[in-house]
Amino acid sequence: MEKKTKDISKSVIRRLPKYYRYLERLLLTNINRVSSKQLGEIMRLTAPQIRQDLSCFGEFGQQGYGYNVSELKNEIGKILGVENSLKTIIVGVGNIGKAIFNHINFSEKGLNMVAGFDKDEKIIGTDFNGLKILSISNIIEFCEKNIVKVAILCIPEDVSKHIVEVLRGAGVEGFWNFSNFELKVDYRDIVIENVHLEDSLMTLCYMINNKNKK
Amino acid sequence: MEKKTKDISKSVIRRLPKYYRYLERLLLTNINRVSSKQLGEIMRLTAPQIRQDLSCFGEFGQQGYGYNVSELKNEIGKILGVENSLKTIIVGVGNIGKAIFNHINFSEKGLNMVAGFDKDEKIIGTDFNGLKILSISNIIEFCEKNIVKVAILCIPEDVSKHIVEVLRGAGVEGFWNFSNFELKVDYRDIVIENVHLEDSLMTLCYMINNKNKK
Repeated sequence: MEKKTKDISKSVIRRLPKYYRYLERLLLTNINRVSSKQLGEIMRLTAPQIRQDLSCFGEFGQQGYGYNVSELKNEIGKILGVENSLKTIIVGVGNIGKAIFNHINFSEKGLNMVAGFDKDEKIIGTDFNGLKILSISNIIEFCEKNIVKVAILCIPEDVSKHIVEVLRGAGVEGFWNFSNFELKVDYRDIVIENVHLEDSLMTLCYMINNKNKK
Repeated sequence: MEKKTKDISKSVIRRLPKYYRYLERLLLTNINRVSSKQLGEIMRLTAPQIRQDLSCFGEFGQQGYGYNVSELKNEIGKILGVENSLKTIIVGVGNIGKAIFNHINFSEKGLNMVAGFDKDEKIIGTDFNGLKILSISNIIEFCEKNIVKVAILCIPEDVSKHIVEVLRGAGVEGFWNFSNFELKVDYRDIVIENVHLEDSLMTLCYMINNKNKK
């Protein structure tokens, strides 16, 4: 199947994990065929929107039949790279780092968690639920040696930018940033995904505060 | 100032916390006047987009002068309800619950964190960094008595829907859901904000896996 991965809008890309998530759920309930109309209803998207989104990546589905759920899920999984097993580290193994490590099934998403790094002597050398915690002073050597591709940043804002530059030099290509600060760099060879939990919380507050006005 | 809070699109509402965040940053760097063009450049939005977004909520800014940063931040803060101090609980004080409690400055965002609830006898009655942990069996009584408005759900998917129904009955109006499951209910008197950390991670993986193809 030809993949047209060029020039796909960010909003389509952002919807791919959502498709993947919903298709996984359908499979869990033993539904293996779905029309764009049905998929649209559960995902709260329109059928044409779904057809248009998926057409960016190839020819899925058949007129009159709909989509084969398992096939579509697998294809989207391949596009997202869930089989890639990218080597990943956590930088900063405090509360948020530990929570993320426990909360997310990294291997299912295409990541291979290889180590955590911290500067706290008390936890260096220990093991957190199977995550080896190493000294931040060895991070460059470790990333170069192990060909680490992804770093999850659970460190304060003031050191994040520096760490990104250091790790970029050591070959890291993607950063998942939990510092509550929108990290931007001018390098085109790395990608940064900023997580803004507080934006989500404030949106919720807005909706609570305004729901009675509607 | 007249607020036109009706029929504002979800995407505009979702950008409000981002405006708030950027305006806070400008103030920290002592910038107190900004044009829509300048704001657009740092936020990666167009100037007309910014003017259109903000016009949904009132008349901000002056032709030829731009926006007064501190005034605009305060107005957006009021719209978001940062002064409201909504009583909030955390349901499930495990790793993710603790991490969220530590990571986010709730009072700054308009929430007043009053207690955590868990079913684990070992932690009930203890105090985590100032958060009192109570038994889940007392949650209804507590919420009714204290007029709790927001619940942060850090519990497994299979119990989330039931807890939402119970807490709705006890007067809770907003739910911030970390169960990795898109919680949907048919009640129009409550609002739910689902957090999908994994979607953000998978988007990052897509971008890493495809950046060399572009």
